[in-house]
Amino acid sequence: MAARVESFVRDTVIAFEKDSRRDHHNCPTEELVAELKDRARAAGVLSPHIRPDGSHLTQRETAIILRKSGLSPLGPLACNTAAPDEGNMYLLAHAGSPEIRDRFLAPLVDGRLRSAFFMTEPAEEDGAGSDPSMMTTICEPDGDHWVISGRKAFITGASGAGVGIIMAKASEGACMFLVDLPDPAIRIDHVPNTIDNSMPGGHAVVTIDRLRVPASQMLGSAGEGFHYAQVRLAPARLSHCMRWLGACQRAHEIALDYACRRRAFGKTLIEHEGVGFMLAENLIDLQQAELMIDWCASILDEGHLGTAESSMTKVAVSELLMRIADRCVQMMGGQGVSGDTVVEQIFREVRAFRIYDGPTEVHKWSLAKKIGREWRERRS
Amino acid sequence: MAARVESFVRDTVIAFEKDSRRDHHNCPTEELVAELKDRARAAGVLSPHIRPDGSHLTQRETAIILRKSGLSPLGPLACNTAAPDEGNMYLLAHAGSPEIRDRFLAPLVDGRLRSAFFMTEPAEEDGAGSDPSMMTTICEPDGDHWVISGRKAFITGASGAGVGIIMAKASEGACMFLVDLPDPAIRIDHVPNTIDNSMPGGHAVVTIDRLRVPASQMLGSAGEGFHYAQVRLAPARLSHCMRWLGACQRAHEIALDYACRRRAFGKTLIEHEGVGFMLAENLIDLQQAELMIDWCASILDEGHLGTAESSMTKVAVSELLMRIADRCVQMMGGQGVSGDTVVEQIFREVRAFRIYDGPTEVHKWSLAKKIGREWRERRS
Amino acid sequence: MAARVESFVRDTVIAFEKDSRRDHHNCPTEELVAELKDRARAAGVLSPHIRPDGSHLTQRETAIILRKSGLSPLGPLACNTAAPDEGNMYLLAHAGSPEIRDRFLAPLVDGRLRSAFFMTEPAEEDGAGSDPSMMTTICEPDGDHWVISGRKAFITGASGAGVGIIMAKASEGACMFLVDLPDPAIRIDHVPNTIDNSMPGGHAVVTIDRLRVPASQMLGSAGEGFHYAQVRLAPARLSHCMRWLGACQRAHEIALDYACRRRAFGKTLIEHEGVGFMLAENLIDLQQAELMIDWCASILDEGHLGTAESSMTKVAVSELLMRIADRCVQMMGGQGVSGDTVVEQIFREVRAFRIYDGPTEVHKWSLAKKIGREWRERRS
Amino acid sequence: MAARVESFVRDTVIAFEKDSRRDHHNCPTEELVAELKDRARAAGVLSPHIRPDGSHLTQRETAIILRKSGLSPLGPLACNTAAPDEGNMYLLAHAGSPEIRDRFLAPLVDGRLRSAFFMTEPAEEDGAGSDPSMMTTICEPDGDHWVISGRKAFITGASGAGVGIIMAKASEGACMFLVDLPDPAIRIDHVPNTIDNSMPGGHAVVTIDRLRVPASQMLGSAGEGFHYAQVRLAPARLSHCMRWLGACQRAHEIALDYACRRRAFGKTLIEHEGVGFMLAENLIDLQQAELMIDWCASILDEGHLGTAESSMTKVAVSELLMRIADRCVQMMGGQGVSGDTVVEQIFREVRAFRIYDGPTEVHKWSLAKKIGREWRERRS
Repeated sequence: MAARVESFVRDTVIAFEKDSRRDHHNCPTEELVAELKDRARAAGVLSPHIRPDGSHLTQRETAIILRKSGLSPLGPLACNTAAPDEGNMYLLAHAGSPEIRDRFLAPLVDGRLRSAFFMTEPAEEDGAGSDPSMMTTICEPDGDHWVISGRKAFITGASGAGVGIIMAKASEGACMFLVDLPDPAIRIDHVPNTIDNSMPGGHAVVTIDRLRVPASQMLGSAGEGFHYAQVRLAPARLSHCMRWLGACQRAHEIALDYACRRRAFGKTLIEHEGVGFMLAENLIDLQQAELMIDWCASILDEGHLGTAESSMTKVAVSELLMRIADRCVQMMGGQGVSGDTVVEQIFREVRAFRIYDGPTEVHKWSLAKKIGREWRERRS
Repeated sequence: MAARVESFVRDTVIAFEKDSRRDHHNCPTEELVAELKDRARAAGVLSPHIRPDGSHLTQRETAIILRKSGLSPLGPLACNTAAPDEGNMYLLAHAGSPEIRDRFLAPLVDGRLRSAFFMTEPAEEDGAGSDPSMMTTICEPDGDHWVISGRKAFITGASGAGVGIIMAKASEGACMFLVDLPDPAIRIDHVPNTIDNSMPGGHAVVTIDRLRVPASQMLGSAGEGFHYAQVRLAPARLSHCMRWLGACQRAHEIALDYACRRRAFGKTLIEHEGVGFMLAENLIDLQQAELMIDWCASILDEGHLGTAESSMTKVAVSELLMRIADRCVQMMGGQGVSGDTVVEQIFREVRAFRIYDGPTEVHKWSLAKKIGREWRERRS
Repeated sequence: MAARVESFVRDTVIAFEKDSRRDHHNCPTEELVAELKDRARAAGVLSPHIRPDGSHLTQRETAIILRKSGLSPLGPLACNTAAPDEGNMYLLAHAGSPEIRDRFLAPLVDGRLRSAFFMTEPAEEDGAGSDPSMMTTICEPDGDHWVISGRKAFITGASGAGVGIIMAKASEGACMFLVDLPDPAIRIDHVPNTIDNSMPGGHAVVTIDRLRVPASQMLGSAGEGFHYAQVRLAPARLSHCMRWLGACQRAHEIALDYACRRRAFGKTLIEHEGVGFMLAENLIDLQQAELMIDWCASILDEGHLGTAESSMTKVAVSELLMRIADRCVQMMGGQGVSGDTVVEQIFREVRAFRIYDGPTEVHKWSLAKKIGREWRERRS
Repeated sequence: MAARVESFVRDTVIAFEKDSRRDHHNCPTEELVAELKDRARAAGVLSPHIRPDGSHLTQRETAIILRKSGLSPLGPLACNTAAPDEGNMYLLAHAGSPEIRDRFLAPLVDGRLRSAFFMTEPAEEDGAGSDPSMMTTICEPDGDHWVISGRKAFITGASGAGVGIIMAKASEGACMFLVDLPDPAIRIDHVPNTIDNSMPGGHAVVTIDRLRVPASQMLGSAGEGFHYAQVRLAPARLSHCMRWLGACQRAHEIALDYACRRRAFGKTLIEHEGVGFMLAENLIDLQQAELMIDWCASILDEGHLGTAESSMTKVAVSELLMRIADRCVQMMGGQGVSGDTVVEQIFREVRAFRIYDGPTEVHKWSLAKKIGREWRERRS
């Protein structure tokens, strides 16, 4: 399957990278994405890692496939392995009742709808940015419904999504709800331009104003919201690593090709040690990123939550990939900062990755807490 | 004057950063630039460093003013201190005959026209990228005209410019010509999207097809082209450093403000050492960048060409500013990668700066040559 | 076995770190090493990875054991897993005839003798430093003997060794010989002080002056010397990574313990993010080093030479460990640069490791060559 | 004078670097230092920056001289510009009464005695390491004497010093005292081996047990101890930067010379870009270090305390010099980690410098506090 995904991305998807169907945030339009999905469906590589009933590959297997799909920024959209859908499908597969899986998961796996995950809140209003305990969106029971109000920010794909998973605080603790979108009670206030361009719908700021949701659309029961966030956390984090590793593999290939063809000062670029060393460093860093991903995937496959391990992996991989993408840009000189190849976009996407799903610093902070806790436990 | 430029940029220019008049490369439109220049003219801060007759401030003085103009990506456009005009005006001031200064320099200083410098050639055709000896554009005398043909790439501002300085090879060596633009013999083939957005006209790929230029529009005499390129080189390089230092100073201010207001995990961001350390590192790096610029400016002011010193400065400053801009993005989390503040744009501009005017590696390469040469001279 | 080695090192060996029996290069004396080996023999952990007949554990298994032995700089000496003996034993196990194994390998495995590997030549005489093609030591047949002459440098453990493996050039190509030491024809000219102190006998500069060796003591046949060097190369390189990973694991433990006990500015050091982040970075880097080692070990276990993979691993691991050791020193402040803990020594040992067995730059250089070669092959 | 110091160090001092008169910590013996001082006295370069009456050069002038003295690790000892004497002389020049200057300063300037500064306290007893508020050494008035008791650690040069400056806490606040050494009430408990070897007497752990000091030997008045510590702080910090910049200039010269002579893979090392780039980076970093020092020196010369500026400078310079020294070691391969040149020692000295006089992290911490304070002041 991985080979099939790779062929599909290389032979079919890459040609669409120059396709001009882009929205005003420079993201692929829904029309373009739909066409890509149709092609993936025809090639048998749509949702290659999960089935409508929620059964899915192991994380080790998923790692190989998602990496291949990531060889183009359009690949995950085409193959339906993109964030946030991939993580949302995983969550529904693990936490959804049969009814919820049937109603919400199946169409996602089928690629007919996009979804969004409403957790992060606006920094400027002191909401839950990297710190979920600051959540200010609330939900209150009202008969056999719940009423949700609050503000959310950086909600990837909210604009244009057909399914939403919303997190809010009740007196019992955090809750998660599934909702059909669009809904007049959910207003897209603003979709900022961002440094990355690969995600349709961008990253919206949203106001939820007395949204009524039937109680049957709560995921699990009240108070379990943070638990479900945890269930989704590590695999979703890891799948970012997988896709962007593929993207950086691609950037490396383009830079390598450039370095082997382009001449300067009497020889090809790769014959200059300054460039040759960068290619060698890329090779080493790509290997390290792959090993960290596979290690963390194995831990998840053994049934662990993998919170610390996925933090370690996210930090290591995002920083490694940043260095790789940066070197690719640098080796290509003026070409590297132009949109003539996809390297420039990958650089920007990877820059954002060092922040998305928790900035490096927040992960180090929580790892340090854990290290101290374990030291004290060993001492007592 | 520096204070006046600073006030103008802070009080007037910054408000235009959200102005939607942008072309399809997301650069400010000519109309927006014209309005900004009018305001600068009214505030007495247009071309604050140079006069129509070519007299200009010292590099030390220029450093202060250009840094202030750089506090907004729009500032240099407004104040007419932007690349490539600033370097082109400098070159004409130093190498232009009175006639040339009168005809080409004066309107540039007056801000009525934009200019472009046609030196770099396309990488994919093995032209002069970072290596000027590979120049393939040629010029041949034809009566009292010269006829120029070739391909140029990464010609900043070519699209929309009113004046061009073109470098081409004759049998006598390199030559430089001044031309009025647009000219049907100069075709804009392609303006790639690039990671930076602050330069109107972008960075064009251009075909010059039997362009006829009167001999009187040659700068100096035939064969002196490389010499003039050298004259322009160090000051132009250095002025990039000045402007982008201003930009990073601004990014730092925005990130600092954010870090002092935004709370996470029970305290403001700046109270987190992870963030506080980044702010301290910025402070140190900003200081180092300023010192390197002032040092190199002093050397130029003493009458030296400053080739090596400006290489050292360009490498040091561009790498320092990259780290500063990167930290600003990182401290601001999701806000840092959004277009809601100018930090995201500054990060992208500074990324390009590590390549523009010679990638870091090319400068190190030429410095190493010089170090070896001087060692051998000391030994002999 | 790994658990036994770990217990032995932690419970027995560490106590000897303060033992004052050191030679004038601050290396453990032969007497101290002999005592440590006796204890290892008694504990059943002497040469835990190899038997006198040359059979040995897989590289994956060896990785675990050597890492544990490395928890103290004295551990590899005690357990007979130290360089260069470990690599020499491996080479004899793979390339030695039964007679050679019997005569030279068995006493090494038994820990009765130390050995040295005479390959590197003096830089100042333009000999084979990182570049084996520059070898100037020569060997010539003379009846049923060979006569070897030349100069060698950085010969670890030469002083005090009982067995030598000498590489020299014949008309057929490189040859390797086994010799009993000491021999009057091999003169230790100089044992420089070096930044590292863990290897008895230091790193000697040696003159070989018409050394006569029976032809039966040639390893394999004439001209195969480089091949054998390759056989030894990757596993020996990798075993450095294993031991020093153990050492850095130990340094991290000491620094962690310090950071959890020591207070400054109102809280323990680990509660300062600046320190907590360093511990988190160590955790991530230790994991990455372990994964690279295990990956390369697997490739060797599959029967590959692993030249490129061990280069990648050597570069990655030595640079990771340097950063880890540096952070440990830094976290401990004044204590970190004192000899009161073993952290300071580990920092110095690891600094040398970035050079021993090929400096980082030489590995990158050869990797770049390989990358270019493979690109060309794919194109043709 | 700077030229004279440079000639003296290059022509006279460097020859003593191989002198075997070293104590068991590998520091120069008192005898060797005395001989070096005699030669400096004869050459007119002893205490070139200060006179017995306390008058001294500006910091800008001092910077040039101390840098030259630092070209050898023995240079500052020879010229009497070494720590801690240099800082102690500065303090006495600024804070000592005529009597104190006469009795304690004059013999120090004359090079007849060494001195020590007793401030830092043992980490393991939660004393004042990087955090002076934790000071536990106390002093109490007793008639016209004061009685001091406590423990001090990392007291450079205490062993063998003739003069001590001791800081202790009274009810009025911190106090400073001048004492003759040795004194039976001051016991050297332990002089740890440290990574650096250039300071005679090493860095001692000391017990002060009811030391009686005449009240006339208090510096200034009771409670002013912290103020005097501040007076000494910035210049002493800065003088470290000056000396070690000289040392790294020297390491760079040695590495450059090596790189221009030594061949590998068919050309000299400097012709390899990997090495050439390192030399270029050194050149840039040396320049940056010099500029930061001169900038901070100017601020002190203008009469400011320069606490923040010297923190910024100390962080920038120590980190720059570490990178320089590390590159020098790396370029020289096996030679770089041997004691055959002074590069290896300089690397170790510079490693310690990142901790001495406040670890990088403590400076960043205090700078962050200051940045936040100033932000709040601007807002109010």
